[in-house]
Formats: sequence, structure tokens, C-alpha cells
Amino acid sequence: MRAVVFENYGEFPSLTEVPKPEPGPGEVLLRVAGAGACHSDISVYRVFEEGQPGAQKPPFVLGHENAGWVESVGPGVSERVRVGAAYMVYGPIGCQHCRKCAAGLETYCENAATMPYLAVGLGRDGGMAEYMTVPERHLIPLGDADPVAAAPLADAGLTPYHAIKQALPHLDGGGRYALVIGLGGLGQIGVQILRALSGATVIATDVKEEARARAEANGAITVGAGERQAEQIRELTGGRGADTVFDFVGAGPTVSTAAASVAQGGRVSVVGIAGGTHEFSFFTNPYESYVTNTYWGSVGELWEVVDMYKAGQIRPDIERFSMDDALEAYRKLEAGEVNGRAVVVPNER
Amino acid sequence: MRAVVFENYGEFPSLTEVPKPEPGPGEVLLRVAGAGACHSDISVYRVFEEGQPGAQKPPFVLGHENAGWVESVGPGVSERVRVGAAYMVYGPIGCQHCRKCAAGLETYCENAATMPYLAVGLGRDGGMAEYMTVPERHLIPLGDADPVAAAPLADAGLTPYHAIKQALPHLDGGGRYALVIGLGGLGQIGVQILRALSGATVIATDVKEEARARAEANGAITVGAGERQAEQIRELTGGRGADTVFDFVGAGPTVSTAAASVAQGGRVSVVGIAGGTHEFSFFTNPYESYVTNTYWGSVGELWEVVDMYKAGQIRPDIERFSMDDALEAYRKLEAGEVNGRAVVVPNER
Amino acid sequence: MRAVVFENYGEFPSLTEVPKPEPGPGEVLLRVAGAGACHSDISVYRVFEEGQPGAQKPPFVLGHENAGWVESVGPGVSERVRVGAAYMVYGPIGCQHCRKCAAGLETYCENAATMPYLAVGLGRDGGMAEYMTVPERHLIPLGDADPVAAAPLADAGLTPYHAIKQALPHLDGGGRYALVIGLGGLGQIGVQILRALSGATVIATDVKEEARARAEANGAITVGAGERQAEQIRELTGGRGADTVFDFVGAGPTVSTAAASVAQGGRVSVVGIAGGTHEFSFFTNPYESYVTNTYWGSVGELWEVVDMYKAGQIRPDIERFSMDDALEAYRKLEAGEVNGRAVVVPNER
Amino acid sequence: MRAVVFENYGEFPSLTEVPKPEPGPGEVLLRVAGAGACHSDISVYRVFEEGQPGAQKPPFVLGHENAGWVESVGPGVSERVRVGAAYMVYGPIGCQHCRKCAAGLETYCENAATMPYLAVGLGRDGGMAEYMTVPERHLIPLGDADPVAAAPLADAGLTPYHAIKQALPHLDGGGRYALVIGLGGLGQIGVQILRALSGATVIATDVKEEARARAEANGAITVGAGERQAEQIRELTGGRGADTVFDFVGAGPTVSTAAASVAQGGRVSVVGIAGGTHEFSFFTNPYESYVTNTYWGSVGELWEVVDMYKAGQIRPDIERFSMDDALEAYRKLEAGEVNGRAVVVPNER
Repeated sequence: MRAVVFENYGEFPSLTEVPKPEPGPGEVLLRVAGAGACHSDISVYRVFEEGQPGAQKPPFVLGHENAGWVESVGPGVSERVRVGAAYMVYGPIGCQHCRKCAAGLETYCENAATMPYLAVGLGRDGGMAEYMTVPERHLIPLGDADPVAAAPLADAGLTPYHAIKQALPHLDGGGRYALVIGLGGLGQIGVQILRALSGATVIATDVKEEARARAEANGAITVGAGERQAEQIRELTGGRGADTVFDFVGAGPTVSTAAASVAQGGRVSVVGIAGGTHEFSFFTNPYESYVTNTYWGSVGELWEVVDMYKAGQIRPDIERFSMDDALEAYRKLEAGEVNGRAVVVPNER
Repeated sequence: MRAVVFENYGEFPSLTEVPKPEPGPGEVLLRVAGAGACHSDISVYRVFEEGQPGAQKPPFVLGHENAGWVESVGPGVSERVRVGAAYMVYGPIGCQHCRKCAAGLETYCENAATMPYLAVGLGRDGGMAEYMTVPERHLIPLGDADPVAAAPLADAGLTPYHAIKQALPHLDGGGRYALVIGLGGLGQIGVQILRALSGATVIATDVKEEARARAEANGAITVGAGERQAEQIRELTGGRGADTVFDFVGAGPTVSTAAASVAQGGRVSVVGIAGGTHEFSFFTNPYESYVTNTYWGSVGELWEVVDMYKAGQIRPDIERFSMDDALEAYRKLEAGEVNGRAVVVPNER
Repeated sequence: MRAVVFENYGEFPSLTEVPKPEPGPGEVLLRVAGAGACHSDISVYRVFEEGQPGAQKPPFVLGHENAGWVESVGPGVSERVRVGAAYMVYGPIGCQHCRKCAAGLETYCENAATMPYLAVGLGRDGGMAEYMTVPERHLIPLGDADPVAAAPLADAGLTPYHAIKQALPHLDGGGRYALVIGLGGLGQIGVQILRALSGATVIATDVKEEARARAEANGAITVGAGERQAEQIRELTGGRGADTVFDFVGAGPTVSTAAASVAQGGRVSVVGIAGGTHEFSFFTNPYESYVTNTYWGSVGELWEVVDMYKAGQIRPDIERFSMDDALEAYRKLEAGEVNGRAVVVPNER
Repeated sequence: MRAVVFENYGEFPSLTEVPKPEPGPGEVLLRVAGAGACHSDISVYRVFEEGQPGAQKPPFVLGHENAGWVESVGPGVSERVRVGAAYMVYGPIGCQHCRKCAAGLETYCENAATMPYLAVGLGRDGGMAEYMTVPERHLIPLGDADPVAAAPLADAGLTPYHAIKQALPHLDGGGRYALVIGLGGLGQIGVQILRALSGATVIATDVKEEARARAEANGAITVGAGERQAEQIRELTGGRGADTVFDFVGAGPTVSTAAASVAQGGRVSVVGIAGGTHEFSFFTNPYESYVTNTYWGSVGELWEVVDMYKAGQIRPDIERFSMDDALEAYRKLEAGEVNGRAVVVPNER
């Protein structure tokens, strides 16, 4: 079968022929409906070097955002899994035995350091291929919902959902404010989730006017970049600051804006991995506010993302690519030319 | 000044002349902008007898839902209170010293049993008059917001808000369901609050078609009364039941519907005081679900209700009555002829 | 190998020869170190009839409280599972795929109704045998801790732990009170857990003086049965009532005592399955208090029970029986002659 | 009457004659039983300059940790306040009208910037005198408990209690670890509170051996200062790190140790005001852990501190000074010669 393979550190992936996989014990073979191309893939094949934190050893098939139809099942898979039905794939694969994995939080697997891979498409073969294998527990039934548009939710939906769910207690009530920094794929879905799940006024900021316009269409009030950015944000909150802030960029200036915009008792979640830093001091930190980081999410949360997708509360904005054009998807992603999320569609229903 | 006075147990109130009150230490004199007429007032003057639980000793001026403009201040009131500005009144008045009162939860005052009154308009003179006195801490600034439409929020807004806020953790996430039983004043505002503060699908039920139509306009899915009521509700939740249920009636049949509609781990809040009961049994109770009761709310919560009102998230539906027609408001309320909430307007701006 | 087999509804189990099991995909074969005999086993073989809720279809090996040493592993089991090492067994086995199972809450499996069994020893072969099979994810490493005394913790430790963990937010702070009703195996461990994890004054009650003496040794204040029971409990709380109540009996009189002893805002957890009921009414229910039920617990919680056991915070009180005497364990249990928890020890280290 | 008065910025206080105060509306006159001398007083008179953040304008009577007997009451005080009875004083005094004050969180008063004082003994006359005045709501009944030893709890008890109470959800369960850095007055009480209210293993660290010995007597495991400090702490947690960390020093090295010792998902509360900083980075921050700051506490929490004191769960370690020796208390405090907390005792029962 054809697949997008990351072959060597530092090299652009290739579209090549690989053997069709076989499902092992407890695993399912999926006919892939959609595989999202994610910015972190670019880091995987362009940035990381062997042995570096975050590096995933090639070769493997890319694609950690997937949905598809069950083609066949391996030994020990329950009869509940329906051949032919559409499922979402929970990407992270931990040891499945530690207390974090046992609770469905495989992103924070206690044995991650000794695992040979992080997730499907990250060390283990992913969904940029005609077929892929997945442990049964990683499947979430999609019912009649479109699996192609669903695919990116595995990361671009789950990552903001997890960050927001941790922060929701800060938004439980009237008169709350949420700030979203960075209005790419995750940020736009972040705005949709915040608008759906809370009564907070959602303020959103990005350097690109077009991104701000989309956020406004999703119900946010927007602020541009520039010197008065943090000041303008604070004014919109009546001077109090935002009860929660989500930084989907994570660069120096965005982390600074995040920290400068938070209210007393508020929470800043840095989700973007651009490496910015923030200095805590007792005297400058609004009392009981804090800056923290979150990474991807749990399988239980992906069930809830699927619920929101089925209910129309999350509406991913995607651009489809055929398998023939799979590498073009990555080329356009690198060039910043993708509108919404690029999804490779290896098979038609 | 003129006032609506409850004079004797079992008797309809009278519109009569009483002395204009003087603010005591820490108190403020308000020129009343609006005073809501509440069903519980009818219980106060029609139902309760001396010594009964809930009875409030006459005579006193009715009206526990109030807003107005500061006319003057008593000794010890801070300069922050602005004469002429509009304020919302937090009605419950506890001992102000126990741990519940110290936290602003005067409804649950630990010394309630020995207090001479429960609230303004409930044992102590209320707002169905040209003027009323209130402790400074019971005032919430309204800014430019209309104090007449705000008045009913002191109870018809705060009571559902408190019940919902306790239950919000049950609604934090995708795929949740909330059920509202009873679509009078509190129920309609309950639907508005649930829609604003959560992403839950809001299901609402009432015997009256007109009430259901209003709930639909507020964003709820509705179910009529009748034999299949609980079954229909459960179907709308995909079989799981509702994560939170609010019963604003509290009669036998509504409490039964509430308990029959709740999901595993869900919460039923009985707010209405019609005296219905529910029998718990280990074998029939969906695991970790429960039925509880809530009463009015805290001053901190009323600040948040005012935030929602200012933001347009709560839109009270009111019918105005002049002071001349104040008794007519109660007559129509008893006759079930009021649309929305009856508000007596003793003074014009 | 020898095993205690439940053969027919209504019949005492037999000690008989059965084939040694083989581990399937993702499963482990355990050499059993200890298997606790539980009162619910008696219901399984004495009380339930075919088709009744709770009935588990015979024949199968009893024993849902187990620990043992890994003897061998089936296909697909990770290398992390160490042959020869001691593990605790999480008993409940759900579909492993629904959102509850994915989060480790297999007791509340959404597909429970169509599962052929509830747990090891409850529909599926359990640990009252020389060997048993268990899915890998159901194992928790015991390290150097004694697996024989650990065995009963799988239910008699996990069940009170889960009930208490749900209630801990009610006990977070100074001046709190917890009430434990029923001081058998679960109740005594409940007292130990409450004393370890909270600062609450623990009040415990039971008809048996000997049970009360053991609870006192575990740090509780005790109250006997009798007319003034609820009154005495309330006095010990300074009149406020208990912030959390755990009823490990669940009979009519104990549920009444529980409900009569709870404070405003408090929680009653009925854990015992003796079928008592409680009538909720708005006017008699202390505001925002409630009665609910809980059942067993999650695999993540069993990890924490094991932590407490290793730290000496839970000290199970056990009576050992050899495999030859396994039926005698059940006979004594039925006769009420077991002190602490009866543990059958099929193999020596 | 005699009082310890802070007269000019930068100057040691004087013991001098001042007029006996009169209680205003809603206030009570207390005959002081005990007034604790706190390190922050030294900052007040030695460190701060006019206009600096934290500076409190002289002259005023020092003493923000107080307890005493009611001598008389001002207008509008309720009859519930019993003349002659002993009360604890909640020190912070906010505007009493904003939403924070209304909820009893006067430390975070929204109008703090325009308030003429922060608390009794901090801008407003405090308890280092024979008499003091306090708003009624700031009194907590002590019953038969000793008011002299209670006095320091107003800050040295409430401050760690508030920080710990915010963090308790992180400690709700088995297998948790708490770290206390800095074992002076607040740190020792912090150890006592953590041991009483949680099941966590409490690790404590300080440079002074004597302070570590006292922490061990209170139930902590201790670690000395030095190069391997953070490493040793992590080893004691089995490699995971501490679920909560409390830094009662707040200097550069202690904040570093705090941040280096926290577990994934853990919380660091910086309570000490020595001005240390910490740099957050996505890549080095254990996922979902964070560093924050807390300041003093709420009146509701002080009620709970008093509950713990009455129950013997908090046992302040005090050194008494007569009014004649009040300045000697400050001299010894500056010299680091006080064992436990210095309490000035202006009146005998």
C-alpha cells in the first residue's frame, strides 16, 4: 500500500510503497478515511536530531490525526468493534499498564521514557497510508459523522479541549473572560470550544487579520498585535484581566502577553511549543494566578470532542488532499499556504 | 410613604401609608426603582400560620426582589456608596457574624432560628414601598443597567443561578444534558443561564404550551407533560439520562420525573417548594446520582447574576405595575394572569 | 488444579478439580497468593436466582479479591510485566472499550448489560484456585508488600476507598465530621482511610461492642445502637451533623440513621446493599445534603489503595485458610464466625 | 493606655501612651489578651519607605495577630456578641462591600488600592495595646480556648492554612507527597496542618537543625540544605516529586528547590516574600505543574483554623512577653532569638 514515510532525520518525507500491516493481539486494522497533517510533523522530520528530546526514530509512517473504517480485527478484540463502521483514533499509545495509562491518560504514561514510540504517526506507523493498526481501546465510534473532517480533531481538537477542560472551573459563572492567543487550527477550535462550553467573553488575538476575522465569525472579540495589545485586552475585561488564557503559540512575546493579561486567581495554559519563557515573582504575579503547560489529552476527553463534533459545536475547517497529493499537503503546510487543516484522504467511503 | 403591607396571617395585603424609614448604622436608604412580586409572597400571607416553619410575623412591607437608587446613608457607611446611583439589593439578611454570613451565604445563617426576620420583605420591611433600608454590604452596583427589569433577579435570577452554579461541574464538557422542569419565571431564567454557561443540550418541560414556546425561544428542546414524559426525556439524551435536573415546581409528579430522568452520577436540584417526595433505594438509584434541595443564593452569586444581566445573558421578562396598581399585581399573580414577572415601580428615575 | 466452584444457583460451592487456565491475548496467568472470601459471594450462591439483577451464571470459580505472582503471559503482553513478581488484581472487567472502561472505571461499564460477567470471581473464573487469568491492565505491582494480606483490599479496601474519595472534598478543612455506620471488614478499613486522609473527627457506630472497640483502636469515637443513636451522633458534632456519612450496611434503620445524622451540605454514601430506603422531602432535607450510592471503584483508585497499604495506612485484619479449608472459610463467614477478612491461601511463596 | 506604636518609616517602634479607642458603628472594643509579633512588622518599620508597595503610613499601633475579650460594643452591633467572652480577630479589613469582601476574602479587596489601611496593625491601629477596636464580623468566638496562644494563629496559622487549603485537592488520596520549605513559625504550623488534614507524606527542609528536629516531632521527614537537597527530596517521593510544595521563605534558592521538587500536575505555593524568582519554560516545566503565590486568608478559613486549634490539631509554640517587655519582643525577633512565636500579653484574664 502507499504511505507517507518519514525516512531520515532532517529529510522531507516520501510517498512510497510499504507492506499492508497486520493487526496484533487486541488491535484493529483500519482503512484510513482521513489523516491530518500537523505542524508538529514538520518538527519531527525537519528539526529534531537523533537522541534529542521529542525526536522519534525513523522510519515510520506519519499521521497522528486519523479516522477510518474497521477492515479486520486481531486476536482478542471484542465483538463490539463493528467491521465497516467509522471510528476516530486516539493517537497517544503509552505502556497501557501504568496508573496514567490505566486512567486513559496515555500522553502522561509513566513509562514514556522507555516506550519505543509516543503515538501512532509519532514513532509508530500512523495514518498517512491506506491502512493502519490501532489498539481497540483507542477507537471511538463516529456513527454517521463524517470521518474525514473528524480526523484533525485527534490532535487539533483534543489538544485545545484538554487545555480548556482543565481550565473550565475558572470559567464556571457569570462575568468571566477567556483569552486565546494564536488563531491557527488549534486556536480557532479553541474559540469554538470556549464559546460552546462557557459563558465567558472570549477575546482572541493574532497577528493575521484573516485569522482574527475567522475568530470573530466564531464569536470572539479580537485584538491585534502591537504595543497596546495587553493593555487593550485588560481594558476589554474591565481592568480585571482574563480568568483563563490559552497560548497556542508559546513564543516569548505571546507568553509575555499571556502572563500580562491574566486576572488574580487566573490560569495561563501554554499549549504552543515555541519555547518562550516567563519569570514568576511573588510581587508581580497576580495573587493565585499561574502559568502552566498542557500536552494533548486523554481518550475520555476525545470521546467528548467527538460528542461536540456530532453536535455541531466543533466545526473543523479542512482542506482535502488525495493520496497522490499527500506530499503537497506537507509542502503547503511548510509554506504557510494551508487554509484550515490539511487532511489527506487515502480512501473513499 | 405608601407601601404594600402584610398585616395579618391569612389576609391579602393592603396598600397603606407607613413612615419613611431611617437608615441605621451601616445601612443605606434606597429610593425603590422596582420590586418584584413573587409566588412565595402569596404563601407568606395566604398559607402560613403563626409559628409554622416558613411563617414570617406580620406586619411588614412585602417585596424581597428589589433595586433602587441610594437616597442617603446611615452612620458608618463607606464613601464608596454613591448617592443617586442604582443598586441591586441582596435580600437575605442573616446574623452577619456566623461563618455562613461571613462568607456571604446569609440564606444559610447559622443563627437563622433566632433571627427576627429572614430577608427584606420576609419579616423585615421590603421594597414594595417608596423607600427601604438595606445594609451596605447587600448592595450591588448596577451602573447603567435598568434597575426596574433587574429587580426580579434578586430572587428569580439568583435562585436558579445558585442551583445551577452548584451543578455546573456536572456540565463541564462535551455531550452533557440538562433538564429544566417548570417554566415559570425561575425556569425560564434557568434555561437562559444554562444555555449561557454550559454547552449542555437543555431539555425543558412544562404542562403549558406557551411556556414551552418561550423556552424554545430561549434555546431549549421541549417535552410536554403526559405518560411518556420521562421516557421522551431519556430518549433525547441518547438513553443516558440528564447530567443535571432542576425542578422548579417540586411537586410529587415533577420530583418523580426528575428522579426518573437523571443519569448515573447526575444531580437533581429541587428548587420548587410544592412538597413532593422521592424514595431513594440502592437498587433503583442510578449509581452516584442524587436528589438534593437548594434555597436562594449568596451575595457573591448575585454579583455574577448582575454581570450576566449587564452582558445580556439573562433577559428577565417583566410586566410593570405602578404603586397605585401594586395590589392588582398580587391579584393577577394569584390568578395566574401575570406574563413573566410582575414588578411594582414606586418611583420613576 | 483445585478450585472453589459455584456450581448451581442456591447451592453451597464445592472444592473441586478444574483445568489450569491459559492466558489469552493481553492476559497474564497468576499463581494465586491470596483470595478473600466476601459476603457478596454468599448472595451469589445463596440468594440470587437465574435472571435476577445481580445474578451471575454458574459454574465459575469464586474469588473477586485476589493477589498473586505472575506465572506466564499470553500474546501481546508487554515485557514490563515481570514473571515471578507479586501483583494485586483489579477485579471488575468491563468491555474495556466504552468511555467508562477507557477511563479505568470498569465497574460502570456502559456495556455491562451485555457483558457475560462482572468481574473475576463474579461470572468469570476468580481467584479461589491455584491459578487464574487476568488482563494485563488489571495488575498493580505490589513490590515487597505481602500479597496475602493485600488480597482483600481488591474489594474490602477499594470499595470504601472509592466512596471516601468521592466524599473527600466535603472533608477538606478543619472542623469536619465523618460518620461510619457498620464496622465489619469494609467499615474498619473505612475508618482507617478516613483517619489517614482527612482531619475529620471520625464517629463510628455498630451494634457489636467488639467491633466498636476495634474502631476505637483505629482512632474513631464510637456510639452504640439504640434510641438515642442519631441524637448522640449529632451531639458529638456540636449539633451540626456529619459532613459525610458512609453506610456500609444499607438496611432500613441504618439508612435512617445516616440521613438523620447528616449536616447541611453533607453527603451520605450508601455502600451496603441491604436494601433500605430513604424519603427525600424539600422541607426535611438539610439544605444541599443528599443520599447517594457507590459501587466498588476504579483501577486508578486501587493503585492508591496499594500505596496506602504499602505506607501502613491501611492494615487489613485477616484470618488465613489453606486451600483444604477453603470451604470452611465460607462456612464460618456464613455463621458470622470470621474475625476480620477470611483469605484463602492456595500457594505459598 | 500603653501601646507599641510605629511612628516613622525606618524607625524602631516605641512603647507609648495613646488614647483608649472608642468602637464606631458595627465595631467592638476588645481588651487584648495576646498580640503576636510577626516578621512582616519588621519590614513595615525597617524596610518600607513612603509610597513603596507594601508601605503602611505611620503612625499606628502595631499587631495584626490578636485575640481578646469584648469590653463594649458600638452602635448597631448585634446582641450575639457577648461582653466578656474571648474572640479571635480576623486582621484584614477591606472595603467590606466589593465581591471579595462580601465573600469574606478581605485580603483580596478589589478596592485595596484606595483603602487607608490593609488590616488591624497594618495601617490601622492593631493589638499591641491594652485595647483595640474591630468590626463585629471580624470576631470568631474562642469559647474556652486560650486566647493568648491563639493570637498568632491570625496570621501564622491562617496564612499556611489558606495556602494548604487551596492545595488540598492535590493531596486527596493515597500515595501523595507534600514538601514544606522553611520551618519557622508558619512552616511548623504548616507541617501540623498538612499532617492533620491529609494522608500525604510530609517532607520538610530548613537549614537549621533545631527547626528540622521540631518538624520531625510534628511528624515530618526532613532533609537538610546542601547540593543534593532537591535530589534527596525527589528520592523520598520515589522519583515522582511532591504533589504540593509550600515555600515559606520565597528566596531565590528556596523557590528553585520548590520548582525542582514538584511532580507532574503538582502545585508550588510561594508564601514567603523574600523575592525569589522562577523561570517557566514549556520544556522544563513538569506537565500541568505550576508556581503561584498566596497571601494571608479569608475570615471563613480563620473559623476553621480556630476549629483545628480547639481540636488540638494546631499547637502554636509561643514565648510570652508582658507589655513592659513588648519592645524586647521585637528586639529578639530582629535578632533571631525568639523560639516559636513572640506574643505580647497586655492584660491578664
